[in-house]
Amino acid sequence: MYDVVCFGEAMVRLMPPGFRRLEQTEELDVKVGGGELNVAVGVSRLGLKAAWVSRLPENPLGRMIRNKAREQGVSTEHLVWSKEGRAGLYFLEQGSAPRASAVLYDRAHSAISLMQPGEADWDACLKGAKWFHVSGITPALSASCAAVTLEALRKAKEHNCTVSYDLNYRGKLWTPEQAEQCQTPMMDLVDVLITTEDDADTVFHQQGEPGDIAKRLQQRFGFQAVAITLREIRTVWTGGWTSIVYADKLYTDRTYTLENVDRVGGGDSFSAGLIYGRLTQNSWEAGLKWGNAFSAIKHSIPGDLNWATREETEKLMQQEKFKIQR
Amino acid sequence: MYDVVCFGEAMVRLMPPGFRRLEQTEELDVKVGGGELNVAVGVSRLGLKAAWVSRLPENPLGRMIRNKAREQGVSTEHLVWSKEGRAGLYFLEQGSAPRASAVLYDRAHSAISLMQPGEADWDACLKGAKWFHVSGITPALSASCAAVTLEALRKAKEHNCTVSYDLNYRGKLWTPEQAEQCQTPMMDLVDVLITTEDDADTVFHQQGEPGDIAKRLQQRFGFQAVAITLREIRTVWTGGWTSIVYADKLYTDRTYTLENVDRVGGGDSFSAGLIYGRLTQNSWEAGLKWGNAFSAIKHSIPGDLNWATREETEKLMQQEKFKIQR
Amino acid sequence: MYDVVCFGEAMVRLMPPGFRRLEQTEELDVKVGGGELNVAVGVSRLGLKAAWVSRLPENPLGRMIRNKAREQGVSTEHLVWSKEGRAGLYFLEQGSAPRASAVLYDRAHSAISLMQPGEADWDACLKGAKWFHVSGITPALSASCAAVTLEALRKAKEHNCTVSYDLNYRGKLWTPEQAEQCQTPMMDLVDVLITTEDDADTVFHQQGEPGDIAKRLQQRFGFQAVAITLREIRTVWTGGWTSIVYADKLYTDRTYTLENVDRVGGGDSFSAGLIYGRLTQNSWEAGLKWGNAFSAIKHSIPGDLNWATREETEKLMQQEKFKIQR
Amino acid sequence: MYDVVCFGEAMVRLMPPGFRRLEQTEELDVKVGGGELNVAVGVSRLGLKAAWVSRLPENPLGRMIRNKAREQGVSTEHLVWSKEGRAGLYFLEQGSAPRASAVLYDRAHSAISLMQPGEADWDACLKGAKWFHVSGITPALSASCAAVTLEALRKAKEHNCTVSYDLNYRGKLWTPEQAEQCQTPMMDLVDVLITTEDDADTVFHQQGEPGDIAKRLQQRFGFQAVAITLREIRTVWTGGWTSIVYADKLYTDRTYTLENVDRVGGGDSFSAGLIYGRLTQNSWEAGLKWGNAFSAIKHSIPGDLNWATREETEKLMQQEKFKIQR
Amino acid sequence: MYDVVCFGEAMVRLMPPGFRRLEQTEELDVKVGGGELNVAVGVSRLGLKAAWVSRLPENPLGRMIRNKAREQGVSTEHLVWSKEGRAGLYFLEQGSAPRASAVLYDRAHSAISLMQPGEADWDACLKGAKWFHVSGITPALSASCAAVTLEALRKAKEHNCTVSYDLNYRGKLWTPEQAEQCQTPMMDLVDVLITTEDDADTVFHQQGEPGDIAKRLQQRFGFQAVAITLREIRTVWTGGWTSIVYADKLYTDRTYTLENVDRVGGGDSFSAGLIYGRLTQNSWEAGLKWGNAFSAIKHSIPGDLNWATREETEKLMQQEKFKIQR
Amino acid sequence: MYDVVCFGEAMVRLMPPGFRRLEQTEELDVKVGGGELNVAVGVSRLGLKAAWVSRLPENPLGRMIRNKAREQGVSTEHLVWSKEGRAGLYFLEQGSAPRASAVLYDRAHSAISLMQPGEADWDACLKGAKWFHVSGITPALSASCAAVTLEALRKAKEHNCTVSYDLNYRGKLWTPEQAEQCQTPMMDLVDVLITTEDDADTVFHQQGEPGDIAKRLQQRFGFQAVAITLREIRTVWTGGWTSIVYADKLYTDRTYTLENVDRVGGGDSFSAGLIYGRLTQNSWEAGLKWGNAFSAIKHSIPGDLNWATREETEKLMQQEKFKIQR
Repeated sequence: MYDVVCFGEAMVRLMPPGFRRLEQTEELDVKVGGGELNVAVGVSRLGLKAAWVSRLPENPLGRMIRNKAREQGVSTEHLVWSKEGRAGLYFLEQGSAPRASAVLYDRAHSAISLMQPGEADWDACLKGAKWFHVSGITPALSASCAAVTLEALRKAKEHNCTVSYDLNYRGKLWTPEQAEQCQTPMMDLVDVLITTEDDADTVFHQQGEPGDIAKRLQQRFGFQAVAITLREIRTVWTGGWTSIVYADKLYTDRTYTLENVDRVGGGDSFSAGLIYGRLTQNSWEAGLKWGNAFSAIKHSIPGDLNWATREETEKLMQQEKFKIQR
Repeated sequence: MYDVVCFGEAMVRLMPPGFRRLEQTEELDVKVGGGELNVAVGVSRLGLKAAWVSRLPENPLGRMIRNKAREQGVSTEHLVWSKEGRAGLYFLEQGSAPRASAVLYDRAHSAISLMQPGEADWDACLKGAKWFHVSGITPALSASCAAVTLEALRKAKEHNCTVSYDLNYRGKLWTPEQAEQCQTPMMDLVDVLITTEDDADTVFHQQGEPGDIAKRLQQRFGFQAVAITLREIRTVWTGGWTSIVYADKLYTDRTYTLENVDRVGGGDSFSAGLIYGRLTQNSWEAGLKWGNAFSAIKHSIPGDLNWATREETEKLMQQEKFKIQR
Repeated sequence: MYDVVCFGEAMVRLMPPGFRRLEQTEELDVKVGGGELNVAVGVSRLGLKAAWVSRLPENPLGRMIRNKAREQGVSTEHLVWSKEGRAGLYFLEQGSAPRASAVLYDRAHSAISLMQPGEADWDACLKGAKWFHVSGITPALSASCAAVTLEALRKAKEHNCTVSYDLNYRGKLWTPEQAEQCQTPMMDLVDVLITTEDDADTVFHQQGEPGDIAKRLQQRFGFQAVAITLREIRTVWTGGWTSIVYADKLYTDRTYTLENVDRVGGGDSFSAGLIYGRLTQNSWEAGLKWGNAFSAIKHSIPGDLNWATREETEKLMQQEKFKIQR
Repeated sequence: MYDVVCFGEAMVRLMPPGFRRLEQTEELDVKVGGGELNVAVGVSRLGLKAAWVSRLPENPLGRMIRNKAREQGVSTEHLVWSKEGRAGLYFLEQGSAPRASAVLYDRAHSAISLMQPGEADWDACLKGAKWFHVSGITPALSASCAAVTLEALRKAKEHNCTVSYDLNYRGKLWTPEQAEQCQTPMMDLVDVLITTEDDADTVFHQQGEPGDIAKRLQQRFGFQAVAITLREIRTVWTGGWTSIVYADKLYTDRTYTLENVDRVGGGDSFSAGLIYGRLTQNSWEAGLKWGNAFSAIKHSIPGDLNWATREETEKLMQQEKFKIQR
Repeated sequence: MYDVVCFGEAMVRLMPPGFRRLEQTEELDVKVGGGELNVAVGVSRLGLKAAWVSRLPENPLGRMIRNKAREQGVSTEHLVWSKEGRAGLYFLEQGSAPRASAVLYDRAHSAISLMQPGEADWDACLKGAKWFHVSGITPALSASCAAVTLEALRKAKEHNCTVSYDLNYRGKLWTPEQAEQCQTPMMDLVDVLITTEDDADTVFHQQGEPGDIAKRLQQRFGFQAVAITLREIRTVWTGGWTSIVYADKLYTDRTYTLENVDRVGGGDSFSAGLIYGRLTQNSWEAGLKWGNAFSAIKHSIPGDLNWATREETEKLMQQEKFKIQR
Repeated sequence: MYDVVCFGEAMVRLMPPGFRRLEQTEELDVKVGGGELNVAVGVSRLGLKAAWVSRLPENPLGRMIRNKAREQGVSTEHLVWSKEGRAGLYFLEQGSAPRASAVLYDRAHSAISLMQPGEADWDACLKGAKWFHVSGITPALSASCAAVTLEALRKAKEHNCTVSYDLNYRGKLWTPEQAEQCQTPMMDLVDVLITTEDDADTVFHQQGEPGDIAKRLQQRFGFQAVAITLREIRTVWTGGWTSIVYADKLYTDRTYTLENVDRVGGGDSFSAGLIYGRLTQNSWEAGLKWGNAFSAIKHSIPGDLNWATREETEKLMQQEKFKIQR
């Protein structure tokens, strides 16, 4: 019985070390990541029981992805294994001003993109679960993935899960029109929407102050809460992080100063903290604060996954100090 | 105007360092290789002018593959660039007894697999060329690649090239039946067949002594010459290398003792040496000796490509000594 | 409910890369290993459900050890966490003839060495379990660890587990006299003894042919079966591996030729294969064959843990071939 | 037939990783670079046909330098190969405030420093060329190199090339007096001077506002245009980059904010962009903008060479944003 | 005969590369460091003769620690070698905002913690020495270490050494009360106290302006001089460094801007510079300036040890410029 | 006062990792070595007091070389420091059959090659010394180095040192004729000649059985003893090592089986062991045995320097076993 169930693709992530361009590298750092897996790992690090549902090829790369989920205590019992399809890959270039970081996806034809409704045993994994999380990347992978997403959302509601949905628009996977058309009906099954200002505009044409965007989205779709993450880009290496939540009212939090070791997965760590805070303290304020602190610390850690502990996240929520601890 | 033109796929090759399993690695060594590119690089290292024809995606991985060809002096003027399709990848695990080395291909949907007849400007690159080389991997990539292979073979004959064909059966790409059916008609356009005993059996049902196999293949298809490489597998780290050529008569050569740093591309180096020796000395005996020595030294060099020089290959043909040179 | 439960220490393993001496290194490769964890991972790789019981400090190194067990699908639910004691470490130097590999232990004062009877919830983890495994390293860690070992063995018998015991004498932890005195009473609770000729001599004064040693040990202690691993040391890089089992009769198997990438954990992989074969095929002959093949392949894999799959182990049992698979 | 021909030394560049001091390092990162090669690579990356003329020793290091030029599409047909002289080396320490980066040259007695007039086939490589580029480093290498530089400049004018000259004063190679005496007569053959404020002062005693310096230099030597690069040093890791061009009038451009991964070769990238913009758009304004953008992006890329593409340089000229592209 | 003798523990320092968390790393960078060794190395780098007294285990790690001291010219003739006890270790995580760097000590049961008075030959190493340095870490290691510290301080005064004492409170080794009780009597033997504001408060309850703290400490204990280092923490990667000395009057110095490659050992470099300046120029002002400049440059160098030279330290004291030197 | 004084060049040694060719590498492993330094380090490791005399440039590479000598306890007090000349470099490629390892020297114009008689303070370093060692590389560096070698040999005899001379012919530095002409007069000052069969033939035209060669050399030059090392080359990775000494009679020893991690410096370790055994046990038999064992173990250690201990060398002399020590 899990606290949180997440569904989506995870990929093998290949990154040239030392700010090298992909074109010039003779070495790649290998990690594993993907929106929903990142969230599952995040809530597991914070102390919840999490399961991750996906579809993986039966080969060393598929097993590597599974292993990294297990390493973090995430249940992989409900994975679907496949003889067809490949493991999705993505190549990440770490940038420095004035060159932004860049991602080259090589995820077409992945095992999960070939997934069909009926393959996952949703009842088995959602039985007793408190929360279900998915992002807008999953339905973007293929038409059948969109169908499975819808299936999962319905099952989650049947099992009385709180459902969170990270809008996460990916322009390399579909167009804004496709994203809107596909996801609008899904929103009825969603309790908590997580998005950025940009994505809210791209998919649902919302602009303006973050609080207003959130409020309007809540009104339109009847969400319990809408969270908007607000990354402040200073340079490539430095930035600021905060978010807001609009539920019964608008909640705000401090802005964390970031030295970016690796910003990929920062939003997913926010989702994980939000879920953790909301679930364990039954408060959107707690959710927001856990989300922001957990996300801020993620930016200092290599890889998509957040290796922070609950203890240090809690400490960070009280103070922001950089003295060596010894 | 090139001495040698080669046509086929090259991939980004990803290898875990230090004998690690792919499943366990956190790092990948990045190189580039592919049968026909390896041959083009080989003849270029030995001093001939070579061009390599392929189809690459317009992205950093496509450029990386092109760069590595250029780095070795191979002309990439005649590459076809594509907005669709991906760069083929392969993952290589270096083994140690009793675990054999293993390759995981991730080459489906590559840019070259989508190539169509008419895309390459064969007249431009073959004009004045002396030799054309392709392997059985290229037609195995897709039906359209098989059609392009046939197109290229015909064009090569029109331009009076000597045509060599490395049978190179890949069981992960097609069945023996498909390989036979597709390649049998191509053999009429081939002057020099390069194969192993296993592949000769798998595709053309030839068994017995290497010299007999070669002779029978020559008779059946009317080849100028048939070369059979004879790898002696002792352990994973050690082995022996020799080959035979059957042309006007049977040519044999010494067996080289190998400590295998990297045996991938060993056969391609044989082809390169064979072409070089034949072209520059107009003798099958010279071709055989250059092929064997160049191949033997390849096994000591990391990567598919052969970084040996003509001078050290020539020296090796005289003596086999392991004293440090200083 | 687990198939196999293992109990013992796992350490962070620190190894200089590239055959460097520990004294000269500026880098250490970090892995995790320990006799019983290695066995738990082994049976999990082969497809059984395994749990590993130990005591770890609440710090990043303790978590790292736990993570590596989880990564391989081993349950860490029954670990005991401690605020006192450190994570055991060991430093490994890979040798080359005439310099043998060497281990420097830094495991004193570890969290597990401070473990007391009553701390582990044996009933919870052994309920329904089929097999319990421990080695002679665990009681050697401290007097209290010896007491916990005895406690565990009794509980395992109460729960009707088959109990295997790897004698694994460690001269840096105790004397032969201490080992004999402490372990003799434990042998009554053991069903399957696994040992080497050397250890059988050191602890129980048995000498002669392996089959005779095994038979005499069986007779003296009433074991179901005795397995003796027979490592043939050729050089540091190369060797041979086989084993025998004496149960109702003497079972022997082929000898595998090894190129040693990493021989640490080779014996533990034998134990894992033995348990797997015996449990799933109810045959000592199967156990022996799985043990030898799984162990042989381990020697080709960096780290204590065996990243082989059941499929490739099975394939190896049929043939010994080193051709690249592609 | 080339668009741009460059002449000068390239060296093997050896850099300790991770901000280590040279004195403390056990590892060196190997790259290749040198002012004029960097320019040739830059214009090749941007799409022009470039050749690089130099003199290299016939050994692996000489070949490595050649290979890196070829890898980027630069023609190495006109290199002079030598049995005497060594490959120049330089050691680079990456700094951090308050420690500046530092270079230790080990370039004395290099193959190019022994080059004599008459060795290079200038007519062959300059035939049809549009632009010739050299820097003040080349004549500083030796008296014979100064003579070859003069020879090259004259040949370039004969072939109606536009000639650019990067003043690039190197205090470790000669004195200000030597630099002035040697280079003053060369200036008559130069169309475009590229310099910094410091070098303009050191060699030609010009001080004041950059625009004034440029104007005075233009007037004194009759240049078509003078470009002055204006690096703003904030810390070692961060800075700003802009330049001005004085031709028919003063051209200025925006200042780019830099996070310095590797500032070596930044000036050479400016020269490359300037040449590219001027040649392809026949406008000093375009030259300045391409120079600044291409140089700014260079600072984010490890090594002397600029692995940016024309497309991303063009994009940068429009916007400065650090969002991950995905 | 030494200029400076230092006494204390040095450890093997293990750091994950690339900002990785300790829990996630598969590699550790190995260095050696410890407060008093760092000071001995510092003064040796600056040109003084230094000896370091400690107690090390007879194993590769003990020898590694000794070697690193010798590498820097520090005499290790007076080390005490031991068959018992281990080499102390510490694990260092490099942070980035908002995650501070962190140290995990694994130094309990080290060889030095078991040291007894009478083991070191103080007369031999202090004969003719001008300065003795120890820090508050040494007595914190164990009761017997506190006794040896007192022994050493007395011997140093007998030999007419100037005695400096870096208060260096380590909360993981003892409580403030223990620190005060143990060290108060030692202060009578101390001539120069070096501390931070925090430590002065924790151990001796001094608060307020640095100058006032220093003055009050001087008055209470009769020190010749009190130095207070003033690290300005901006982010984890950036900061400022200055210090003050109170002797006959208050001395202040400029603040250096830091880009922190590695701030560990920064305080020890200050001590080394202070000792060097005071000893060679007989002036507290010189001591302060050398201390600050030498410390500032340390922050740019990986490892505890300061690989700067006297020449570059001197240069830095005049100017703060980040231009590449070439 | 030293037991052993050595004189000669040491270089920075740069090696591509993982069997890469120099031409293809992007990384170099940095070590330090040189015949006579290797010997000084060897005798220091074994417990003697050693000094190394050389001439080094005042730059980071010169300091690096000095540091590595100090790290091993070798005195560098008598080094001559120079503002002219460079640090010698050599590039080492590790081979594998059929490609031999190869060295590319870049040592011309080094600081030591410019050394003149009178620069070193021979009286200071040889006072009380028991043994002086030099090799045939030193006089080959330059005419002035040959003069300094002669000066040193004379001084060593004045100070009653036993003088050993390793013939060490280097064909890249001089011709056989030059070597014979220069070294013949030096032989009068030599007590112990160390050579290989090849070098004895090249320089002094001796052929035949090793024992006969040694005897004839002894008779011709009146040596106390002649040692001939007998490397048995099997493959590049494997070999055998033994030596003979001819003094009052012929001494022989067992042959060690080698797995070559790094054979460079193997002969120097023999010299070190020979000196150690002879000096401490006053016996040529002991010298031979220490020489062979110390040399054999060297082949298993990366770098020129021998990181073995006296204890493990002694152990090896008794047994040859490859079991892991734990």
